[in-house]
Amino acid sequence: MLERIQKENDIKALMPEELEQLALEIREFLIEKISKSGGHLASNLGVVELTMAMHLVFDLPEDKIIWDVGHQSYTHKLLTGRKEGFDELRKYGGMSGFPKRKESACDAFDTGHSSTSISAGLGYVKARELRGEEYSVVSVIGDGSLTGGMAYEALNNASSLDTNFIIVLNDNNMSISENVGGMSKYLAGLRTADFYTGLKKGVTTALHKVPVVGDSMIQKMRKTKSSIKQLVVPGMFFEDMGITYLGPIPGHNIPVLCRALREARRMDEPVLLHVMTEKGKGYAPAEKHPDKFHGIGPFHIETGEPETEKKKDSYTDVFGKVLCDEARNHQEVVAITAAMADGTGLSRFRKLYPNRFFDVGIAEAHGVTFAAGLAAGGVHPVFAVYSSFLQRAYDQMIHDVALQNLPVVLAVDRAGLVGSDGETHQGIFDLSYLSSIPNMTVMSPKNKWELADMLRFAISYQGPIALRYPRGEAYDGYGNFRAPVVHGRSEMIYLESEIAVVSVGHMFEAAAEVRNKLKERGYCCTLVNARFVKPIDEDMIEDLCRNHSLIVTVEENVQTGGFGEHVMEFVSRKCRKVGVLPLALPDDYVEHGSIEALRKETGIDVGTMTEKIVKAYSPKTSQEGRV
Amino acid sequence: MLERIQKENDIKALMPEELEQLALEIREFLIEKISKSGGHLASNLGVVELTMAMHLVFDLPEDKIIWDVGHQSYTHKLLTGRKEGFDELRKYGGMSGFPKRKESACDAFDTGHSSTSISAGLGYVKARELRGEEYSVVSVIGDGSLTGGMAYEALNNASSLDTNFIIVLNDNNMSISENVGGMSKYLAGLRTADFYTGLKKGVTTALHKVPVVGDSMIQKMRKTKSSIKQLVVPGMFFEDMGITYLGPIPGHNIPVLCRALREARRMDEPVLLHVMTEKGKGYAPAEKHPDKFHGIGPFHIETGEPETEKKKDSYTDVFGKVLCDEARNHQEVVAITAAMADGTGLSRFRKLYPNRFFDVGIAEAHGVTFAAGLAAGGVHPVFAVYSSFLQRAYDQMIHDVALQNLPVVLAVDRAGLVGSDGETHQGIFDLSYLSSIPNMTVMSPKNKWELADMLRFAISYQGPIALRYPRGEAYDGYGNFRAPVVHGRSEMIYLESEIAVVSVGHMFEAAAEVRNKLKERGYCCTLVNARFVKPIDEDMIEDLCRNHSLIVTVEENVQTGGFGEHVMEFVSRKCRKVGVLPLALPDDYVEHGSIEALRKETGIDVGTMTEKIVKAYSPKTSQEGRV
Repeated sequence: MLERIQKENDIKALMPEELEQLALEIREFLIEKISKSGGHLASNLGVVELTMAMHLVFDLPEDKIIWDVGHQSYTHKLLTGRKEGFDELRKYGGMSGFPKRKESACDAFDTGHSSTSISAGLGYVKARELRGEEYSVVSVIGDGSLTGGMAYEALNNASSLDTNFIIVLNDNNMSISENVGGMSKYLAGLRTADFYTGLKKGVTTALHKVPVVGDSMIQKMRKTKSSIKQLVVPGMFFEDMGITYLGPIPGHNIPVLCRALREARRMDEPVLLHVMTEKGKGYAPAEKHPDKFHGIGPFHIETGEPETEKKKDSYTDVFGKVLCDEARNHQEVVAITAAMADGTGLSRFRKLYPNRFFDVGIAEAHGVTFAAGLAAGGVHPVFAVYSSFLQRAYDQMIHDVALQNLPVVLAVDRAGLVGSDGETHQGIFDLSYLSSIPNMTVMSPKNKWELADMLRFAISYQGPIALRYPRGEAYDGYGNFRAPVVHGRSEMIYLESEIAVVSVGHMFEAAAEVRNKLKERGYCCTLVNARFVKPIDEDMIEDLCRNHSLIVTVEENVQTGGFGEHVMEFVSRKCRKVGVLPLALPDDYVEHGSIEALRKETGIDVGTMTEKIVKAYSPKTSQEGRV
Repeated sequence: MLERIQKENDIKALMPEELEQLALEIREFLIEKISKSGGHLASNLGVVELTMAMHLVFDLPEDKIIWDVGHQSYTHKLLTGRKEGFDELRKYGGMSGFPKRKESACDAFDTGHSSTSISAGLGYVKARELRGEEYSVVSVIGDGSLTGGMAYEALNNASSLDTNFIIVLNDNNMSISENVGGMSKYLAGLRTADFYTGLKKGVTTALHKVPVVGDSMIQKMRKTKSSIKQLVVPGMFFEDMGITYLGPIPGHNIPVLCRALREARRMDEPVLLHVMTEKGKGYAPAEKHPDKFHGIGPFHIETGEPETEKKKDSYTDVFGKVLCDEARNHQEVVAITAAMADGTGLSRFRKLYPNRFFDVGIAEAHGVTFAAGLAAGGVHPVFAVYSSFLQRAYDQMIHDVALQNLPVVLAVDRAGLVGSDGETHQGIFDLSYLSSIPNMTVMSPKNKWELADMLRFAISYQGPIALRYPRGEAYDGYGNFRAPVVHGRSEMIYLESEIAVVSVGHMFEAAAEVRNKLKERGYCCTLVNARFVKPIDEDMIEDLCRNHSLIVTVEENVQTGGFGEHVMEFVSRKCRKVGVLPLALPDDYVEHGSIEALRKETGIDVGTMTEKIVKAYSPKTSQEGRV
């Protein structure tokens, strides 16, 4: 059946009775492909029927479907002629795991971060009105994404519409892991409620309890409140926001889904269609452990077990372990995550210290200000968060944490290149945005031991401090270099002369290799582990200026506003005779692919860096005449 | 009566019958003082009784009151012994117009931006639980601030509490100007509803309309929905979030307020106390035009008219006028504001093109992604927003606008130093954070004509572009320098040799004066108007390198990641024999005061800059041996 889907709208040629078979084949295809390539599995298995129904009801690419986050768009890609793309899914040069406008006209909007789809959809709706066009706009948002404030800002605005806008709430009762907060409880209530019975029974009881006059206003209210809470009016929350609510709709029943979508399309107003789906649907291991199969590497289909056994601890693991150790001795240490307890290594902390653990939902902005409040209240919060998601809280870091100089630790995970998730997930701006914030300290460790030492240092530090480390296995080389962490001090690894390579964080491994290559080619080369990106170690740089003619900085961050430019600024001010060569990422987005491929592409692999240094150091061999 | 209030808790010694007199005196005092100093008037007049009631019920500084935004904290300052501070309100070295922990132990949390108070309060509550302390936490948030998504993120989290947390919703039915969105309509419904009558009547009607079985589920729902909407259950929206709702409470009745606050304090759960206040209460001109009296300069008490007549157009005025002109010829141009139509000069646009004008509420994150959606849908949005508030949308600029290279114009108002609003409002990070974003173009005009030209250029440009200009009167010098705006090209004003001063945007006026001073002292000096901060004009800098030995950059932005560092990076790479002196703001927050005082304090006034240049250019006279 899948063979018959060569491009968008081909699905419409299928007979109704063939659709179930297609759903089956899509699931088999996805499980088969993702078991080899890795990717997002559970979220995609959950929306097979929903996606099919949307493709049956709407016309692509005229109608616009906007996938919130976008990691659930695989079936959509299959139904729009991108079956072959799955062989190179998330590989360098291959198909992205997220919607991309440059990949297909059927991808209406690029996504990757959470809670943006209603805002983008509302933009399309208003543009449609102004241009007098006619097409449907459908924003598909998960219940997890509804914990993000942007979604609420957009709902608040959508209420003013008097033209059609369909918001599909894909409610699987989960974020990446369990969902949190009042909204989640509210949706759970809707899922289980029998509308009419509930209404009649609840209201009758409530009416009985409405007291007669005489009592004080406030007391009256409190008395009736609890019985009124029983009164289940489905979707009243959304109706109160000005959004028409339809649902709940069973999310794996194609005919019912199609009927509901057609109904929704007929209305001249914003409509929220509440669809109940099951994450991981159709693959037993994923149904059982949807969080484990959210984003996953290659695995054995029979067992669901990962194909390659994990050998070494990741930086995330090390962080999680050390934080638990520290928490034992420091009662004031608390941990925060934005819906990423597993991803950020906080699962064990949650288990050991449930009262000191806070999952705020996909709400980084709140998370940072909440941390500021905790710190003002006398505890010491550690907010573990992915670099690209912390971008969401730039203002809160400036305005709530650093302005008051509060002791908040930002554990910035997935910093630098993250690989196959691509453009939206690369953590390549953090050194720039963190450096721009007054009072902020920014550190990055060269290996796993230094991560431990830096985390301990951060917890002892009385001010805002960010600790930045990457995805993946923690480097365990250079374990004998473990000088105590001192604020603003770098670590000298090999002191020589001529060329000095100063590396930031996990780029140390590559920097050390670069030094070896330079040594092989007869150059003298000093190697420094920067440790602190803010403040930079000015004394060290001044020392280097004395007997080096070239200082090379190495970082996995965009060059603009990064470590290299800080060093350059200092050198330009203090000792202009020394050259500075900043090796960093270009002023551009970096797509998906292996870290190795991406480093090569962006010119920060060992080979390219070595050549650049040699060229910069030997002006005679350089055509551009640098230095 | 006011004389008897010398410090916190003094108000508790007053007899109940004396409180009304105190409220009167506070209003008189505030009107008197603000008529002289300028400041936020309407918001403060609205919360006199509410603040008094909180000070009567709670014990400061043990209990924590967190003022959202904080521009309504004047009565709180009066009641905590800061009466004398009003003589130097918002002046350099004087009292801030916002809560400051360093100013008083009774200020629990620094604020300035919107929608942070519930997050911060929740942090205090959790810290209190963990430390086993006992105090009340009260977050006071306006209905305008409830349009910001952070507030919702925090409410969603607060629902899990089983200890007391009081959220006072100060509902004056306004943002700075009229409030927008579904939430606002919902609150309006609550304000006017008679709870019991409404409930009984509504429910009875609704029950009558509940259809019997047989019809399809969806049709059933739609039929009953409209009648159910009539069923007014006060605060169900908040109850659905897991927050207990009390109200609405009349906001100018001290005994009722005290009773409600005491009631709220008794509950072991999060409570939202819905208080209805009147913005501008007690001063007729402010009651009539609360938006005009939101933030105001010195005015005549009798008439409410401003003391000094405005002579020249502000940059904001110029922007507003030119945008309207452009909109006439370009049907695709639409305008967005985040609750700042007046402040950003969009009032006329709103009047002329209501269908093309969007006030999204205090929701910058949504605003930016909404703009991206509009652009993807084929119109050309101009988002006019204050620099410090755009910090809220850093991720959205990276992730939704620039990644897809969408044509969105960011009109960044209040850029650079803003003066008396102080630390939280200075727009001194934008050149850094905007520069870090790939695909982004960043411009800044030297005078009012260039602002017009740049805005026209921005609207013709097919990609993300930011146009940055400051608060206050638009400079009208150098009107004869008006070369066409070309992407990435600077403007040569005077070409000489030796020293080159390259200025960004409105610092041009000071830079030109600096040049005059240098000329008077016998130096040759080139003057360049940078125009583009990203991309920088590399050809121009390369030209300058040929016959200048010092390039001075001048910008009103932090140095880190700003224009000076971009120039420095280029010079360091291309022509290291030339020195670069970046004149910019230090890596620090800048407090409130006049622009003149703040420039002097931060070393970017004409005198200090001239001395720095002379010192940098004459190495023999320099003790530090620069250049």
